[in-house]
Amino acid sequence: MADTPARTSGDFPPFRQRHLISIADLKQHEIIDLLDRAERMVPVSRQERKSLPTLSGKTQINLFFEPSTRTQSSFEIAGKRLGALVVNMSVKTSSVSKGETLVDTAATLNAMRPDVLVVRHGAAGAVELLSQKVGCSVVNAGDGAHEHPTQALLDALTIRRHKGRISGLTVAICGDIANSRVARSNLLLLGALHVRTRVIAPRNLLPAGIEHLATEVFTDMEEGLKGVDVVMMLRLQHERASGKMIPSVREYYRFYGLDAEKLAFANPDAIVMHPGPMNRGVEIDPAIADGARSVITDQVEMGVAVRMAVLDALLSGDQA
Amino acid sequence: MADTPARTSGDFPPFRQRHLISIADLKQHEIIDLLDRAERMVPVSRQERKSLPTLSGKTQINLFFEPSTRTQSSFEIAGKRLGALVVNMSVKTSSVSKGETLVDTAATLNAMRPDVLVVRHGAAGAVELLSQKVGCSVVNAGDGAHEHPTQALLDALTIRRHKGRISGLTVAICGDIANSRVARSNLLLLGALHVRTRVIAPRNLLPAGIEHLATEVFTDMEEGLKGVDVVMMLRLQHERASGKMIPSVREYYRFYGLDAEKLAFANPDAIVMHPGPMNRGVEIDPAIADGARSVITDQVEMGVAVRMAVLDALLSGDQA
Amino acid sequence: MADTPARTSGDFPPFRQRHLISIADLKQHEIIDLLDRAERMVPVSRQERKSLPTLSGKTQINLFFEPSTRTQSSFEIAGKRLGALVVNMSVKTSSVSKGETLVDTAATLNAMRPDVLVVRHGAAGAVELLSQKVGCSVVNAGDGAHEHPTQALLDALTIRRHKGRISGLTVAICGDIANSRVARSNLLLLGALHVRTRVIAPRNLLPAGIEHLATEVFTDMEEGLKGVDVVMMLRLQHERASGKMIPSVREYYRFYGLDAEKLAFANPDAIVMHPGPMNRGVEIDPAIADGARSVITDQVEMGVAVRMAVLDALLSGDQA
Repeated sequence: MADTPARTSGDFPPFRQRHLISIADLKQHEIIDLLDRAERMVPVSRQERKSLPTLSGKTQINLFFEPSTRTQSSFEIAGKRLGALVVNMSVKTSSVSKGETLVDTAATLNAMRPDVLVVRHGAAGAVELLSQKVGCSVVNAGDGAHEHPTQALLDALTIRRHKGRISGLTVAICGDIANSRVARSNLLLLGALHVRTRVIAPRNLLPAGIEHLATEVFTDMEEGLKGVDVVMMLRLQHERASGKMIPSVREYYRFYGLDAEKLAFANPDAIVMHPGPMNRGVEIDPAIADGARSVITDQVEMGVAVRMAVLDALLSGDQA
Repeated sequence: MADTPARTSGDFPPFRQRHLISIADLKQHEIIDLLDRAERMVPVSRQERKSLPTLSGKTQINLFFEPSTRTQSSFEIAGKRLGALVVNMSVKTSSVSKGETLVDTAATLNAMRPDVLVVRHGAAGAVELLSQKVGCSVVNAGDGAHEHPTQALLDALTIRRHKGRISGLTVAICGDIANSRVARSNLLLLGALHVRTRVIAPRNLLPAGIEHLATEVFTDMEEGLKGVDVVMMLRLQHERASGKMIPSVREYYRFYGLDAEKLAFANPDAIVMHPGPMNRGVEIDPAIADGARSVITDQVEMGVAVRMAVLDALLSGDQA
Repeated sequence: MADTPARTSGDFPPFRQRHLISIADLKQHEIIDLLDRAERMVPVSRQERKSLPTLSGKTQINLFFEPSTRTQSSFEIAGKRLGALVVNMSVKTSSVSKGETLVDTAATLNAMRPDVLVVRHGAAGAVELLSQKVGCSVVNAGDGAHEHPTQALLDALTIRRHKGRISGLTVAICGDIANSRVARSNLLLLGALHVRTRVIAPRNLLPAGIEHLATEVFTDMEEGLKGVDVVMMLRLQHERASGKMIPSVREYYRFYGLDAEKLAFANPDAIVMHPGPMNRGVEIDPAIADGARSVITDQVEMGVAVRMAVLDALLSGDQA
């Protein structure tokens, strides 16, 4: 571990956003700024370089209305590595009538004077609503089928590090597009960076209006994967999608699961991504998931760096 | 954030209590001392002023046999802002026979050498029993229908800050008195400070002997609210009270829910309080809860300051 | 609290193991080295002496696939008292297919770059499997009926402190041997230190091949306890063992529960141990559990010291 500290806030112009709710709220230069900050955080997130505790004296509350071990841990590690005081709150939505709880919970937490709330909620728009009721920064850690902005940022950082650039690439997002906030945030981010995006899914997993978000829409994997630089698989949202829409998992895997045969249609140096947790043998052949072209664990690693960058940017922006 | 640190412990004479189990254990001057300490903590709890880490090197265990997101978080933030090492333990009482578990749990935790245990338990008296088995300080975070002393302290601090004083006021506590540790702790505290207290509740929600705790007892809201300075609403303990006692929530709201019409009987500058979480439309009209006279979020904010003061007083008292 | 810090790592030759999965992996001198390090940690774990934050800047993830309030808290306090950033993750195994989850979870956590993973899992061998997939140190906090190495170390430390030595003693381990990782780890550790070990259990709670691990095997308590220096009781694993094997709890207690009458067969200065949590009146008479010869709470206390020593040894070994 080297001794040179990475003082990130201050080296960048102040980040003007108070919250990170949606990729749609960010201008192109803000996305690139966050990726550059995250790049600078990578050695810190890897514990290869010491960080100045830029969030020392700051309070971060992780408020998860839906459980998510990996995302919550990633934000917790990010905050703690920057010196923040981190408090985890898991709230069961079921126990109370939703609308009121959310507003009252927001008011209660706000009164405890946190500097940032990291919020996951099952309902699209809930995190934005909550952000309007509090005096601190709010980071959306996933709201229903709406957005998951830090996932899109970590995906973009992973792509940029592996391909050397983002602009000019062709990226295919495959699978359960209709139920995926990951797909939505990625399409918005990649669109803002002028990336050629393709979505590939069975017709019943394509949401209405998807043609406005993606450059091209395919229902056939082999056709859609031709010549792409990045293959981004999605988790099949069994709990929402299965039964009524999909004949069987086996049939889904046959037509839409990523295996060597289908991947052969992509560019020879195409990388394979998945936001996790994976349903092995459903969306993806385990041999591909663990193969040389998979960057899936890199995505997790970039997750910590991106979240450090986002927290740092929002909170040092406050002081500017 | 100003740089002047608030060194609170040391500025006050040592606090002689080892535990905070019950308001009934405190003399008048000790209550006032805790409120003064909490007042000094307010800018620290708001992160407007830096705190000396007076609990640095101290271990605080939050032991919650009943889940309580807001109270546990308030204690966790209070401890961490003072530099304590805080460990949360949630224990399900159901899984084991109660008496034994409590004593064995106490012995186990005590052996880990914490400096303070913050305990919530469903049974009245359980926290005191536990305090007799350990070598560290114990703070009662609510034991059955018995006491919730930090709630009473934060309520008193909120009143004092809004009305400039406590003595000489008239305070009405309204609703589910029978099942409320909040009511009990508040009546004890306000009684010790010679405040005129009124309880207002349907006859079946008034506990036996309540006339010894409150100055006056009412079953009619309009009559009871006449001329009061503070209206303190209680959460209806649905889980314990409903069904057998209350004809219907709608009828409860009609007779005992605080709305503009009933509030008009209180003094024009009366403030409205609620310990949360609120059942909006059951105990209180949402318009009143969010209105200009509501100090409900201030109560939450004072909660962090009061808990910082209590932890600091108990633990610096240890060293004296 | 004295001011002299206990700088432990560095005073000992580097600990060569990267993981602590099994007592079976340790040579005799490594066991003694860990006990000596733990002995040095005792005043720190008791907060009688300040510790240098030897794990400052290190990340410890507690990954518990089975809930265990006491073991997790012990590891959490140990890590935090040494300055580590500690993250707790509770994972329900049931929700996903086991083998895959474990490997994917390992890959995910590894990508977050922790320095040490403390893992409890319901399946024997799962922790070792996980350790092969990660780049950091792994500590086994209990894997199925396989091993619980820190429990055996804390038991040995407790024995050594009470009896002044370990070698040459006779130790009886009594009860549900078949389902107990505690018994297994203790037999391995005591065997490595040339202690005379006895197991005492009904025939159906004795695992096949137990005679290779224990010096002597008994099915009668009075016979087995004759002349022993240490009586180590085990928790009856109701959830696994009862029903099919044990006629009734009352009968079990009559023949195998430790009461004054049975204890009278042991040496007059024999100590009584139990890993907790106890089933009072099942394995042990409450009067014995709380009696003068019980060292049960000392075991808990030594648990924190042992875990501090293990974490410190593994992580300072990394740097060597």
